[in-house]
Amino acid sequence: MRVYFTFDSRPDLQKQLVDQFPEIEFAFRKGIVDNDLETAEVIVTYGEDLSAEDIAKAQNLKWIFVASAGVEKMPKEAIAQRNILVSNVRGIHKKPMTESILAHILSIKRILPTIYNNQRNKVWDKRGGRPTELNGSTALIIGPGAIGGEIGRLLQAFDVYTIGCNRSGNPAEYMNETFRMDEISEHLPKTDIVISVLPSTKETEHLIKYEHFQLMKDNAIFMNFGRGNLVETSVLIRALEEQQIQHAVLDVFEEEPLPLESKLWELDNVTISPHCSSHSSRYLERSLEIFIPSLEKYLAGDTNIENKMNILRGY
Amino acid sequence: MRVYFTFDSRPDLQKQLVDQFPEIEFAFRKGIVDNDLETAEVIVTYGEDLSAEDIAKAQNLKWIFVASAGVEKMPKEAIAQRNILVSNVRGIHKKPMTESILAHILSIKRILPTIYNNQRNKVWDKRGGRPTELNGSTALIIGPGAIGGEIGRLLQAFDVYTIGCNRSGNPAEYMNETFRMDEISEHLPKTDIVISVLPSTKETEHLIKYEHFQLMKDNAIFMNFGRGNLVETSVLIRALEEQQIQHAVLDVFEEEPLPLESKLWELDNVTISPHCSSHSSRYLERSLEIFIPSLEKYLAGDTNIENKMNILRGY
Repeated sequence: MRVYFTFDSRPDLQKQLVDQFPEIEFAFRKGIVDNDLETAEVIVTYGEDLSAEDIAKAQNLKWIFVASAGVEKMPKEAIAQRNILVSNVRGIHKKPMTESILAHILSIKRILPTIYNNQRNKVWDKRGGRPTELNGSTALIIGPGAIGGEIGRLLQAFDVYTIGCNRSGNPAEYMNETFRMDEISEHLPKTDIVISVLPSTKETEHLIKYEHFQLMKDNAIFMNFGRGNLVETSVLIRALEEQQIQHAVLDVFEEEPLPLESKLWELDNVTISPHCSSHSSRYLERSLEIFIPSLEKYLAGDTNIENKMNILRGY
Repeated sequence: MRVYFTFDSRPDLQKQLVDQFPEIEFAFRKGIVDNDLETAEVIVTYGEDLSAEDIAKAQNLKWIFVASAGVEKMPKEAIAQRNILVSNVRGIHKKPMTESILAHILSIKRILPTIYNNQRNKVWDKRGGRPTELNGSTALIIGPGAIGGEIGRLLQAFDVYTIGCNRSGNPAEYMNETFRMDEISEHLPKTDIVISVLPSTKETEHLIKYEHFQLMKDNAIFMNFGRGNLVETSVLIRALEEQQIQHAVLDVFEEEPLPLESKLWELDNVTISPHCSSHSSRYLERSLEIFIPSLEKYLAGDTNIENKMNILRGY
């Protein structure tokens, strides 16, 4: 049996696999190689490199392990027709993304950008800036799912009061209260930090409008770590220019990469995180922590593996 | 009765006091005024502005409330001789300092300095830097007292394994293990983050030596938020130049302000935090949260107030 990785991976991780599965022939490549496609029973991919033609060539393919959460760029129909097993690494982003969000919040509260600027200029300014504190704040989490819950858990450890907003208004884990999305306006005026980790659906496009920023506190922090189309870019720029809020931290944008001519680059009350909040040098290591038990199950004839997904449905 | 503040305070906080204690005559000044000294029964000070001569002039003085943790600059003998009651705001630094420490750790792990630099240069570098994760790390806390315990509590919430080092080796709160200071060398090789919040005593001067940095991991973070004399500056510079560790975050220094000619300003694997880690715009508010109940007690004739201290002993 042949397992084909379509991307480069660390030699130590490769060795780990080869040692642990001596009966398997592994091919570690950087890109799509016809010969490997034709012989592989399992393909491990980041989900952006396979075409419908590749699937046609992969006559022996029975399982695709996607080392990513998104499968938007995969040839879904071709895979579904052949009834190929697909699984992904859903949930892998939870911890690094949550740590990024906490890093940004604490950095703003404890004025790290000012400290870094002063250091660059060799300025010892003991009383500069206005450091404040996270404890005692109120945070509103839009989309309190797995990632939102982890954010809530850590914010509560910092003595932050957490309010969740979801479709149903049903209680969510690590939220002190949960409300329906259409009740959000009532809760914005008392919120210090608004965090969206909403996935993209038609319902969430431009969900946050100018009026919502007007309702937020002058010293509120707005963070978008879900999808770029949650707010229209022009609305965001207007709200920031008018200082309706203190600061925005953006990991996602309507257009990515953010165009060089975007006004967002010019504003000093925004942090531009180039869609990197979930990156981690431990990413592949974590992916293998999901892949290895799945491979063991698969070898034992059990296809009920972790994060098995319906490729057409997308989750 | 007259209460004299020797420093400027926010009008809303002044109003709160005046409203709550109509029977008291408050004087809010900026500095030492002879007439106020002579008439005040209570002085509220940051602890750096009173001389022995001032105490001699303050014939009616019965209580000094120090809105600071340190009383090193106060005329201790003069105060002790008159048996003047002294209390301070011990513990007020715990939360802001801990939030600063977590901010710095997460900022390094989630490469915020790189993100800020790229933004300044309008560079969208999605794959730049090497973000890593805090969870799963091991931290060694030198001096696991009130502040060290709060750091341990939050690190544990991030799934960090905490090791405390204190004089006795007795268990300390929020530490997974605790060892004696003289056993530190055994634990440094497995530690990812070394944090000192040790107060200054003769025993702790130059406690951390070059050999200790050699024992630390190449990618360790060393943080000094206690006293500047924990490490000799030349030793610290040597360890950083040789990249014995990944990064140092320094809030305290042997000489403060850090001299402009110090090599530390030049190194890119150090963060210079100008002894500001416990600053907070909520500082005075928090001080009053201690002062007000104490004033109520004092008015009721009860001098057993919070953080009552022995000025000669210093705590």
